[in-house]
Amino acid sequence: MNESILYSLEHAKAARASYRAGKIMPTAGIAPGIAQANMISVPQEWAWDFLLYCQRNPKPCPLLDVIEAGGYRTVLAEGADLRTDIPLYRIWRNGKLTEEIPDATRAWVEHQDLVTFLIGCSFTFEGPLQDAGIEVRHIADGCNVPMYLTNRLCRPAGRVHGQMVVSMRPVPAERVADAVQITGRYPAVHGTPVHIADPEALGITSLSHPDFGDPVRIEPGEVPVFWACGVTPQAAVMASGVPFAVTHAPGHMFITDVPDLNYHI
Amino acid sequence: MNESILYSLEHAKAARASYRAGKIMPTAGIAPGIAQANMISVPQEWAWDFLLYCQRNPKPCPLLDVIEAGGYRTVLAEGADLRTDIPLYRIWRNGKLTEEIPDATRAWVEHQDLVTFLIGCSFTFEGPLQDAGIEVRHIADGCNVPMYLTNRLCRPAGRVHGQMVVSMRPVPAERVADAVQITGRYPAVHGTPVHIADPEALGITSLSHPDFGDPVRIEPGEVPVFWACGVTPQAAVMASGVPFAVTHAPGHMFITDVPDLNYHI
Repeated sequence: MNESILYSLEHAKAARASYRAGKIMPTAGIAPGIAQANMISVPQEWAWDFLLYCQRNPKPCPLLDVIEAGGYRTVLAEGADLRTDIPLYRIWRNGKLTEEIPDATRAWVEHQDLVTFLIGCSFTFEGPLQDAGIEVRHIADGCNVPMYLTNRLCRPAGRVHGQMVVSMRPVPAERVADAVQITGRYPAVHGTPVHIADPEALGITSLSHPDFGDPVRIEPGEVPVFWACGVTPQAAVMASGVPFAVTHAPGHMFITDVPDLNYHI
Repeated sequence: MNESILYSLEHAKAARASYRAGKIMPTAGIAPGIAQANMISVPQEWAWDFLLYCQRNPKPCPLLDVIEAGGYRTVLAEGADLRTDIPLYRIWRNGKLTEEIPDATRAWVEHQDLVTFLIGCSFTFEGPLQDAGIEVRHIADGCNVPMYLTNRLCRPAGRVHGQMVVSMRPVPAERVADAVQITGRYPAVHGTPVHIADPEALGITSLSHPDFGDPVRIEPGEVPVFWACGVTPQAAVMASGVPFAVTHAPGHMFITDVPDLNYHI
């Protein structure tokens, strides 16, 4: 590995340690070159439906790792603790968000059979977009990526159903084709966009009012480009009335030890 | 769709109907341009472990569809019947192959909770290899592709474990790089090779004695190239002593209605 990746790996470990110690912050731009992941944990009784939901909806839910009942370790980051190493967690009860907390250890006590899914995150392809000279607006402006609930239904699996969530990045019209090709080389982290321009067709009435994250500037000549988003399982938790779930808070991801390039094809 | 794909779709339906009527034959080269799939069905009690095994080993076990307990219909081919539309099935009991039969309907009666996995097949990228002027030897010679059990352990999942099975195609040394790039565009059907040349390093002692399928000629100047193979779950059935399973017989695949190009990225 080259020095900059080794440096980022140190940064990844240090970031996880600081979140474990209670620091709360969005993770975009942290440990550049290292993959981040979405997380959702559900009781074992719901795990089959969720695993199948991910298999059937690989664009929004590309699985990077599945941790079996009660576990909180992952092959994606040795020594990491999934109960504490994410800056902000959400607790869901009967499909409703009931709490945002910096430490989810209690959830693993309350439900000793939680199965955990780690899902690819589009932050992975943001470095390559920037390297190609395409500004990633929410990084440039220091805010969270805007995310929207769409009118697109995912393919259901058993009791689990819901709409697709997308993230949006404005891209200059003449660079949209480049953005498609660059992100297409990362199919394990959402890959190509699912929709380009025309937000109304996705059921998005106002780009200034994202359902998750922060709104971003769209400059003249820029086109909104939409990628499938790993917050989609949270929409499924809501739509399906899942009795209990733990997830990351949108934009507050699990930072792995896996170089982004491992997901490049 | 263009005329040649429409013609191949008709051919796919006709082939499935002929297998349903009892015809037994390998499926390589049938319905060119249409994807074929590996099949494995296990009782529901083993389904979680198998689904996780596939998720953890996406090169040999790329999932195209999962059919829930008792089902035998798939979104990959409307109207097809997975109990009868494969030319040859294998029945496994306690990890041992006990029968090869052209109709598996009885298995769905004996076990009413079979969960079925359809897994991508490297036949999908053979058309593109041929189109690029790379001869696919087993098609040229009219036999089954050679497959080998390797010494590479797959990542286990619960009770399911086993070694990776690979398929082998000899490729002229100066075309190996092309073969890598062409097949890499089809990650859902095994993608890039897992190993190039040096069969001993995979634990293969004799290329002339494949564990499944037929041996093929290797001409001077050709290099054996190895791709992860969808027969890997059958090796897992053996290694794990799964109490009951139904699979396709190697080389005798399920022909879908999905154009190969749907898996091109």
